[in-house]
Amino acid sequence: MTIGVGVIGYGYWGPNMLRNVASTDGLVPLAVSEIKEERLGLATRAYPSAVGVRSYEDLLQHPQVEAVIIATPLANHFEIARAALLAGKHVLVGKPMASSVEECEELCSLAERCGLVLMVDHTFLYAGAVQKIKEFVTSGIVGELLYFDSVRVNLGLVRSRHNVLWDLAPHDLSILLYLLPERPVAVSAIGACHVQQTDKALATMAYLTIKMRPGVLAHIHVNWLSPVKVRRTLIAGTKRMIVYDDLEPDEKVKVYDKGVELTAGETAYDVLVQYRTGDVHIPKIASEEPLRVEMVHFRDCIRGGGKPRTAAEQGLEVVRILSAADASLAKEGEFVKI
Amino acid sequence: MTIGVGVIGYGYWGPNMLRNVASTDGLVPLAVSEIKEERLGLATRAYPSAVGVRSYEDLLQHPQVEAVIIATPLANHFEIARAALLAGKHVLVGKPMASSVEECEELCSLAERCGLVLMVDHTFLYAGAVQKIKEFVTSGIVGELLYFDSVRVNLGLVRSRHNVLWDLAPHDLSILLYLLPERPVAVSAIGACHVQQTDKALATMAYLTIKMRPGVLAHIHVNWLSPVKVRRTLIAGTKRMIVYDDLEPDEKVKVYDKGVELTAGETAYDVLVQYRTGDVHIPKIASEEPLRVEMVHFRDCIRGGGKPRTAAEQGLEVVRILSAADASLAKEGEFVKI
Amino acid sequence: MTIGVGVIGYGYWGPNMLRNVASTDGLVPLAVSEIKEERLGLATRAYPSAVGVRSYEDLLQHPQVEAVIIATPLANHFEIARAALLAGKHVLVGKPMASSVEECEELCSLAERCGLVLMVDHTFLYAGAVQKIKEFVTSGIVGELLYFDSVRVNLGLVRSRHNVLWDLAPHDLSILLYLLPERPVAVSAIGACHVQQTDKALATMAYLTIKMRPGVLAHIHVNWLSPVKVRRTLIAGTKRMIVYDDLEPDEKVKVYDKGVELTAGETAYDVLVQYRTGDVHIPKIASEEPLRVEMVHFRDCIRGGGKPRTAAEQGLEVVRILSAADASLAKEGEFVKI
Amino acid sequence: MTIGVGVIGYGYWGPNMLRNVASTDGLVPLAVSEIKEERLGLATRAYPSAVGVRSYEDLLQHPQVEAVIIATPLANHFEIARAALLAGKHVLVGKPMASSVEECEELCSLAERCGLVLMVDHTFLYAGAVQKIKEFVTSGIVGELLYFDSVRVNLGLVRSRHNVLWDLAPHDLSILLYLLPERPVAVSAIGACHVQQTDKALATMAYLTIKMRPGVLAHIHVNWLSPVKVRRTLIAGTKRMIVYDDLEPDEKVKVYDKGVELTAGETAYDVLVQYRTGDVHIPKIASEEPLRVEMVHFRDCIRGGGKPRTAAEQGLEVVRILSAADASLAKEGEFVKI
Repeated sequence: MTIGVGVIGYGYWGPNMLRNVASTDGLVPLAVSEIKEERLGLATRAYPSAVGVRSYEDLLQHPQVEAVIIATPLANHFEIARAALLAGKHVLVGKPMASSVEECEELCSLAERCGLVLMVDHTFLYAGAVQKIKEFVTSGIVGELLYFDSVRVNLGLVRSRHNVLWDLAPHDLSILLYLLPERPVAVSAIGACHVQQTDKALATMAYLTIKMRPGVLAHIHVNWLSPVKVRRTLIAGTKRMIVYDDLEPDEKVKVYDKGVELTAGETAYDVLVQYRTGDVHIPKIASEEPLRVEMVHFRDCIRGGGKPRTAAEQGLEVVRILSAADASLAKEGEFVKI
Repeated sequence: MTIGVGVIGYGYWGPNMLRNVASTDGLVPLAVSEIKEERLGLATRAYPSAVGVRSYEDLLQHPQVEAVIIATPLANHFEIARAALLAGKHVLVGKPMASSVEECEELCSLAERCGLVLMVDHTFLYAGAVQKIKEFVTSGIVGELLYFDSVRVNLGLVRSRHNVLWDLAPHDLSILLYLLPERPVAVSAIGACHVQQTDKALATMAYLTIKMRPGVLAHIHVNWLSPVKVRRTLIAGTKRMIVYDDLEPDEKVKVYDKGVELTAGETAYDVLVQYRTGDVHIPKIASEEPLRVEMVHFRDCIRGGGKPRTAAEQGLEVVRILSAADASLAKEGEFVKI
Repeated sequence: MTIGVGVIGYGYWGPNMLRNVASTDGLVPLAVSEIKEERLGLATRAYPSAVGVRSYEDLLQHPQVEAVIIATPLANHFEIARAALLAGKHVLVGKPMASSVEECEELCSLAERCGLVLMVDHTFLYAGAVQKIKEFVTSGIVGELLYFDSVRVNLGLVRSRHNVLWDLAPHDLSILLYLLPERPVAVSAIGACHVQQTDKALATMAYLTIKMRPGVLAHIHVNWLSPVKVRRTLIAGTKRMIVYDDLEPDEKVKVYDKGVELTAGETAYDVLVQYRTGDVHIPKIASEEPLRVEMVHFRDCIRGGGKPRTAAEQGLEVVRILSAADASLAKEGEFVKI
Repeated sequence: MTIGVGVIGYGYWGPNMLRNVASTDGLVPLAVSEIKEERLGLATRAYPSAVGVRSYEDLLQHPQVEAVIIATPLANHFEIARAALLAGKHVLVGKPMASSVEECEELCSLAERCGLVLMVDHTFLYAGAVQKIKEFVTSGIVGELLYFDSVRVNLGLVRSRHNVLWDLAPHDLSILLYLLPERPVAVSAIGACHVQQTDKALATMAYLTIKMRPGVLAHIHVNWLSPVKVRRTLIAGTKRMIVYDDLEPDEKVKVYDKGVELTAGETAYDVLVQYRTGDVHIPKIASEEPLRVEMVHFRDCIRGGGKPRTAAEQGLEVVRILSAADASLAKEGEFVKI
């Protein structure tokens, strides 16, 4: 049983989607929609099995298209996803899922009511590196979490109606929520706008701090205006510490047998601090393209009806944090409860 | 005219001080004070010109000692510096200068009244790399400052009565204040304690955010519990961006000819964003040991009576920010005016 | 005038060729030949404009195919290139051009006689980094060449009838010959076989030393069995030194203002050596895919009849060195004249 | 029982020697000899327990000096070491041990006859990293050795009467001989001189190739005129491969679980090559200063009469290879038997 797929949007990310649909057994690209004539031509020449249409509405009327992938700017996610679900299509929607908590909630319940798969493209959760870290965290070798610190910066301003948090932080937030059992309690965001491109001053850099539970912080630095590209996440536990550097070609995940031990000192009030520094372990990471793994998972969820790893509920949770972050930004960094 | 110097404290930093006193023309180590007998023995065996005493009070009575260097824990800075000034000695005190704004202010006016040099050991301002960046910033090639982002983390908990901010952030703060003409307006600090070593829960990691002027942020991440050592500062301006990586042996400072240009788009509301990526320039950096440069400067200030590059006023300003940061920490990150 | 292109071989490199043919204006893929049915299917599904045939002979009979690209193992290069030229097709042949000097010479004169373009796929000469280094060398800022040292190692054994020199060294040799005005005088090669895969013991690692002129050496280390991947070339001149690290994503070429200066010493026999260490310059490099630049160049040579940058003569020269290297390998490193 | 030590030569390396003598329990610096008055003054001011003399002959007459450390240029090693042994002193001599095989042999038998310790300063064999690699090799986890490849290059010309091989290669040769059970069979050396500083053209760069046994090569690249500093050794075995990068501050040794497996292919003549890529292991390395470990070992050998880890015999073996290398250099790379 081959599933007919339609891809909506053929800008930056759409080509990756279409390529992976085409190369996944059991999926076949039947339609592409894209407003720009020239890009639509590129798509249909490269994938002759897909018809090209200008509007997503036309695409949704294609009777053999059972599933759609939404690769449009965030502003259109809700409208298109809603229409697709109402048209009876399974949906894989880009990240973040939608522009507001309300929109996400409506999509969640709509998908539920219709019995359709609604999956969010949190690509990193299909990466071998994140899977490996999840294994380590779950196995207990990391111990209790102390902090999560992520830096995701580079020179590369997305022209957008949304600030840098909505563009870059969904990656880190989806990883954070996937790895940790705790839920965020409150969020603070501080940012600055260095390139004013719309009537609003959208933050081009931001620092996001999340209280997970007492003593456990997550911190995310996102920046469109950094001279150097950094993609580095520190995950520190009481037993081991992990560094995940996504720019390393071969050694993305390093597990440090490092930590601190406390022993009683000379007096009752005295504590001796001793470091434990041991070996470092660099696990072999599966090298398959994450988007390909995701596509196979999408297919299997459609076939089997299971809940996706990156289901609408996860998408909602990410947007909940982003919305709280926006509220905090407006209050100049005041913590906002989630 | 050789200046007799006394070094107070021979723990972690004192040996570096004594070594540089001994190797600087015009300075001679005449006395060392240290409570621990064994360490005192090490000092006097290595530097026979210096007499060893147990208490700093004894050292201050040495008539040939004209200048003292205070290399004790922060808690003792104020008391010792005050006594030294009252005893008519020039003073070079470790960073941060003292534990409170009031203490710093008292030392400032005392030094002023006595006509003595009071210098703070903000070592990095004597480093070739920081001097080179200062040149670039002053020359105008960096343009207007957009942000200052510094990460100073490693595994290495100082057993202390003060949190990680007081230990590590003085480096970044002194560099920030030296490079930028603007003064900080408000400070937010968020932290967590992962190793409780005193009755108070002292932050072992913290994120410090400083508003310099509208749209210009400084952010400092300090952490005693990081698996990897990072010493990296990004300084972004409208024309160029600088990366200062203090762990690079040869290429500490990189100047990126990168930026963003805005041009009018198709409609009045439309702005086109274009990146400018050009060459990278790695200037040759003077390799002299910063502490040695600092020692020569201390000598020259004593001889000539000039104001040190890292005068008491700069020390005070750093402590003002640290104190505000502590207040913000207590309020869980609320911005505190400076 | 669009040029019909046939790609022969759809193994490791063929897909890259076909993709770039398809995306180059003025070229259109009309045919693919590949022995393995399954891979042939992949090619024609991805590029529906191309017919798939099993044998290269069938492909050569396609009347609209004006140019062919040979992406087969080295053993077949000569036979196929010869047949293609005889069939009146322009040819772009993989590196190295053929298995022997005689074969290369025959192809050279055949192409000459037929008035057809015969180009060798020395891809690196179309890379922005190599172009930039060529500029520097030509401009004179590097000074006179002192040495050329290249390391090209990784874990990745090509199953082959040829040793590692024929697989990896053509890259370095083509760069060497392109950058330097001097011609090689003699070659020494020493190697070892650590995986015996045919009846002959083919070297899996080798060190190649080339005398360019008195005092100027080129040295190339190629290795299929290295735990780490290295692609690093040092090019030292009397005035400046260049490091070309092809694995660096953004900073592939670094120009060091480093060198040595000699001055007269105290006595007539005495020479004082002083280092000159100055700034480092990292030029911006064009980021276009080299194969794409090459494809445009192939098209332009066909249209305009000009000599390719990587013409058959260059391919011959590389093979001349490889053949001498094989002779030296057999004599355990004895220098062999070229 | 404290051993009185004399240090001969206070140029580049002497200060390190004196510092480590002074800080080693059981050793005490009693004398320093140095021709240059100014440097001698530096030594005696820093280490007041040592008397300063201008000639080594005077130092050897000091009755309390039981052991001497020779930190002079290579040209003087033999003469001084011989005189010291004849004066009844234990000797630690810099590397390489002497200028010729004959000199080394004479020193070996002289030390033997006199019953004195004669140790060579092959410092690296006291480094934690080399000790750890030795453990791995001895334990069998590396498997049978395939090759040893070392690069030791930087900008830094030693003004010398000897070529770069005699200056830099002793490090690599001593490590090679320590790690491998096999003995070198033949040596080839090719070099070039880019800075003529004496009447002879001394190689400033050289490639040394050593045949260990059939199929096993060692290769060493040493260079005084490299724009970048590299200290990297690859040690490949049939089971694992090790990369030793001495410039890495924390991760000097990496053990790669990488290799190649051969399986029967479809036909009798066919072999399938498959890579094995697994985890990477970075062992914790003892961080003690190698020279300090060496000094303790020197003391213990004097006290206990045991054979040093870097005994005169090892020094001789290194010089044997260097001499053969010089002979090969003169014959432009021809292999010379050892």
